[in-house]
Formats: sequence, C-alpha cells, structure tokens
Amino acid sequence: MQDEDYMNLALKMAQSTKGQTNPNPVVGAVVVKHGQIIGMGAHLKAGTPHAEVHAIRMAGSEAKGAELYVTLEPCSHYGRTPPCAELICKSGIKRVVVAVLDPNPLVAGKGITILKKAGIEVEVGIGKEQAYAMNEPFFHFIQTNTPYVTIKAAASLDGKTAAKTGDSKWITSPESRLDVHQLRHANDAILTGVNTIIHDNPHLTTRLPQGGKNPIRLILDTHLRTPVESNVIQDRAAKTIIFTGKSIDERKAKEIQTYGVEVFPFSTPTVLIPEVLNELGKRNIMSVLVEGGSEIHATFVENDAFQQIIMYVAPLIIGGKEAIPFIGGTGIELVQHAKKLIFESIENIGQDIKLVAKPLKEG
Amino acid sequence: MQDEDYMNLALKMAQSTKGQTNPNPVVGAVVVKHGQIIGMGAHLKAGTPHAEVHAIRMAGSEAKGAELYVTLEPCSHYGRTPPCAELICKSGIKRVVVAVLDPNPLVAGKGITILKKAGIEVEVGIGKEQAYAMNEPFFHFIQTNTPYVTIKAAASLDGKTAAKTGDSKWITSPESRLDVHQLRHANDAILTGVNTIIHDNPHLTTRLPQGGKNPIRLILDTHLRTPVESNVIQDRAAKTIIFTGKSIDERKAKEIQTYGVEVFPFSTPTVLIPEVLNELGKRNIMSVLVEGGSEIHATFVENDAFQQIIMYVAPLIIGGKEAIPFIGGTGIELVQHAKKLIFESIENIGQDIKLVAKPLKEG
Repeated sequence: MQDEDYMNLALKMAQSTKGQTNPNPVVGAVVVKHGQIIGMGAHLKAGTPHAEVHAIRMAGSEAKGAELYVTLEPCSHYGRTPPCAELICKSGIKRVVVAVLDPNPLVAGKGITILKKAGIEVEVGIGKEQAYAMNEPFFHFIQTNTPYVTIKAAASLDGKTAAKTGDSKWITSPESRLDVHQLRHANDAILTGVNTIIHDNPHLTTRLPQGGKNPIRLILDTHLRTPVESNVIQDRAAKTIIFTGKSIDERKAKEIQTYGVEVFPFSTPTVLIPEVLNELGKRNIMSVLVEGGSEIHATFVENDAFQQIIMYVAPLIIGGKEAIPFIGGTGIELVQHAKKLIFESIENIGQDIKLVAKPLKEG
Repeated sequence: MQDEDYMNLALKMAQSTKGQTNPNPVVGAVVVKHGQIIGMGAHLKAGTPHAEVHAIRMAGSEAKGAELYVTLEPCSHYGRTPPCAELICKSGIKRVVVAVLDPNPLVAGKGITILKKAGIEVEVGIGKEQAYAMNEPFFHFIQTNTPYVTIKAAASLDGKTAAKTGDSKWITSPESRLDVHQLRHANDAILTGVNTIIHDNPHLTTRLPQGGKNPIRLILDTHLRTPVESNVIQDRAAKTIIFTGKSIDERKAKEIQTYGVEVFPFSTPTVLIPEVLNELGKRNIMSVLVEGGSEIHATFVENDAFQQIIMYVAPLIIGGKEAIPFIGGTGIELVQHAKKLIFESIENIGQDIKLVAKPLKEG
C-alpha cells in the first residue's frame, strides 16, 4: 500500500456519504502507522464530527507518529466543531496527505499552514481530481456564491421532449424517471417555468421507494401567472418560491402567500437568470435542478448558467418540425457558435441512455 | 474446448471478413478431431471457395471422422462453386454443428437434409444470435428482396442537424466523420434527397485514408430538380441513379444521362419509398445508407422503411425552434404513438457519442 491506495480508501468512504452531508462536502480520512491502518472515518452529516475527528479518535493514542490521509484540507476555523487542524497537531500525527485545498479562497491553505507551523510534513494533490469531482457542487457554490445548476431533460432519439400537441407521457422508462427522483433528492432546489406549471401541473416532489427529501420548488413567472389552484401551491409538500418581475397583481401575490408560498418580485421587468442565481446563493441554496420546458432550458444555456446537463435519451422517434425540442429559444446561426460541451459519461438506464455533459472549458 | 468455443472461433474468423464478401455473407468454419483443430477457414470474397471448403481442404484426409463447426448452413445448390453439403458428405465428416440455417426460405434446411441423409449427425443453433447479427443485412435482403436500410444522422445534443440558417459544418468530430466514410464503404448504396444536393452539393463518395469503395448514389427527386452542374452528376465518381415521379422535363433527363447518370421515373406522381426499395432489390442492391435531410429521414421513418439508425451525437447545443431537427415531417400527436426503437450499442467516438438503434420488434 502506498499514498495513492490510502487516499483511494479515504475517497471511497467520502463517496459513500454523498447526498447526506449537505451543506457540507463529503470527506474521508485514514490514519496509517507502520503500514497498518489504525483509524478511518468520514463526515456523515452537518453538525457532526468531521472525517479527521472520527479517524483520529479511532486511532487513539496510537495517532502519535502516524500519517493522516484526508480528501479535503483540514479546517482552520471554529464552526459548529473545533478546527481539525488543531486537533491534528495535538494528536502527534507527523505527516498529512491532503487531496485538495479548502475551496473557499478566503481560507484555502490556512489549515495547511497551521499543520506546517506545528512541524508536520504536508503533501497536497494526491487524488485531487476525484476529490474535486465528488464535491463539485460544493466547490462551485463556495467559489461563486451561486448554486451548481443541472439541466435535466428527457428526450426522444430525435431530441424532442414532447409531441407537437405537448404530450410527453412517457418518453422515458420507469428506470430513468426513478433516477430523476434521485436527482431531485440530491439537489437543494428544483426550478421550472410557469408554462410547465400551467401545462403539466406537476408536484415537483421526490418520489422514491425508500422516501427522500423534497427540493425547494422555484418557479420563474414574470407576470405571476401561476394558478392558485396549482399543485405546487396547494400541496404544501415543500418550500416554494415564485420569482416574478416587478409588475404583478399584488392581490394575487397575497392570496398565494396565504398558502405558505413565497412570491419574490425582482425590481426588473423580467426575471433575469443571473439575479435568480445570486438570490439563491444568498439563501444558501447550493444546487438547483432545472426541469424546465425548452424555453427555460434555452434561457439557462444562453446565459451560460449551467454546470451540467443530464439527458435521458429514449429509444423513440417523435418526429415533426412542430414537436417540442429539448432546447428552444432563438438558437445560433452558425454551428461554430454552438455552445460547446464535453461528455462526461454515457450509460444504459432501463431501455434508455443517460448522458452527462458539462460545458467545455476552453483554452 | 467445447462446441461453443469452436463455434466462437468460426464466428471470429467470419467477423474478420466483414465488408469483403458482398454480395455473399460472411462465414467461418472449423474442423475438429480428437480435441485438436485440424482445419479452419472463412469465405473471403464472392466467387472464391466457401468457408467449409477451405477448412476441409486444410484437414485433408484427416477430415474423416472429424466434426465441422460452421456459422451458416452449408449450401445445397450449384452456384459459382459446387454445393458444400456434398463436399462435407464426401469428406467423411461425422458431425456438423451449424449456427444458423440458410436465410433463403426456399433453400433453408436443404443443406442439413443432405447431410442427415448421408448419416451425418447435425446440430443447429449454437452461436445463432452472433451468426445472425454479423450477416443481418444479407439475411434481410434474402428474406425481403429489399435492401437493409441504415439511417445515418449527425446531431447536436439537442437533436439538431443544422442551425436555423442551414449551416451544419461541422457538428461532429473528425473521428465521427471518418466513421461515416466507413459506413459508405460498407454499404452498396447511399441515398439522399434533391434538397441536400441543391443545398450542400455533396460528392457522396467514400474518403478513407486507405481508400475505399464508393457506394452507388441514389437521389430522390420527384420533379428532377437536381442541377446538371451538381458534383454527383459532374464528378463521374460512382454509378448514380435519380429516382423521379412521372412528370419530368424529358430534355433535362436526357442531358443528365449524357453524364452517365441514370434517371429513373416511377409511374406515380411522387417517389414512393416502398417502390424505391423494390427497385433497388431488383438491382441486387443489398444495403443502403440514408444520409438525407430531416424530410427524407421522416419519410423513411413514417414508412417503417429502416432497419437501423446510426446517430453521432456531438457535445454541442445549437438550440432554437427553427433549427433543423434530425427527423422532420409532421410527427405524431401522442408519445404513445412514437416509433419504438431499441438501443443496440453506445460508444464514445472522438468527442462524440455513437448510438445504434433498431426498430423494436413488438410482441
């Protein structure tokens, strides 16, 4: 076993807690002495001990002279728990291997500095890509103060999300639809447009066999056209916010608010995506799943306001120039101006195919 | 080694000759005696010996008492070569394992009957799926007298084959475009519509680093609008047929024919896909690659006139309701009436994804 192997173990433990640590990142830690693993742990839930604490506790007095592998830089500040960097110094650990630095630029490197000042040998970067990938939404939020945006679509092989009549039941298989509910569970919020509310009257809740967390529901609705009798207003299943432009029917807003639904008017005539994302950032909403119609999707794409597209492609042909495409809007004139992505993964899911694509970082 | 292993070897040899045996199927054969392989062979090229002949020749007098594994039922008729079934009987082989029967319903089973009458033990069905799959176009043609149709498309992640201006250069990566030239090489003919000729003026030839066979070029052109100065008429790079309706400008037809291009008017006002496929069948064109625009694709889909869709999905978003979709036409009204497919394979190709889908056989 060498550094990479111990770090891999720490990464595996971290990965296993994905979805349960929000708003904290997933973190794993391993303590090694004389080639024996003497401690291991992962952060399980916000407000409970960090990964290093579990691992060092397990090691007990054996930690003196040992090596620590941890997937994220040990914290340097007092939060709900005391700083891990100090605990590590006290434990007598002589070497610390860290996968990635704290993503918060204001504190990045401070934990490492504490360790080094205490005479501990520190190495950074082993397992960096994996450690980064498993906390991508967390890193994005910390660095931008805006949520990590995933656009989700279910389309036929010919890129249609509905027939020309608007009918879309069901394009994808039960397995894909279940996977979407996992996405809803894993995201802090779900966002759609008022047309989807009017047309489909969805609940936008998480329906999983083993239960699951409902995301906060966000509706972009410039003129407050959301019907009071909509499921999202009536079902009280999750916190719901309707973002509007500045000119709305105040009486309707008040009526909607009696159902516990927030109406948030921006000071602009229309709802601007960057403003929405800033507002969500202020509310500590770290991740948003966009399940819009083709116009909402187009708006996010045109604003470069997405970090990931997850597309379920069904083995169907809908056809027709009038059928609803995955991305609407005005579109580009030349292919060379198309938005460039990179495919991150492809897999079979039920009879469908699941594609994950991210914006290509150029240069 | 058991039956399946020997058949797998025969299948591998057959597979290796794909593309070089047209209009014949690919076939492999292995001769085994006392657990030793004493002969093997594959059919290499039309007009040359069949797989069984090569394998039995290699075995020589040792074939007496041996077992033969062959991926396709030995032929029972005199063609360009004498019937293999008779050769097998003469060779003294005592057992024959066959993957699939001859696809021609008029002769299926006749080879087996000859063998059985000679007292040879015969087993059919081992490796059936693979043997069928590697000769699918051949089987389709023999059974229907119409060519095996592959619809090829290159689309963005949002299902667009061109921007709203018609610009489509280049949606997919060089690797995908090279793969398309392999498809052109492997198909007997390539088919497109007159709008593609007018708009893109393509050569529709095979351009591969190591050379390659140009497919016969087929153009659906009801009113004979193909410009005389088109590349497909001027370049004389491959046999070219323009299929038209009954009312065309006879003078233009004659002019086009002076370039060695055939103009074939149907007796109907428009060009009907089933009539085209029947005509191609009569001309022994076993496979057609459809590289149309969205209307040609829609016509083939609406007529259920395709056996395979190969789609190259590029990591791009073109967007826009006016952009050109992969499949045009009028489309369906309800998703439940969508054309059902099954994904056969998905793979990364360059930065793109290659999807192969086939019509779902229901019931």
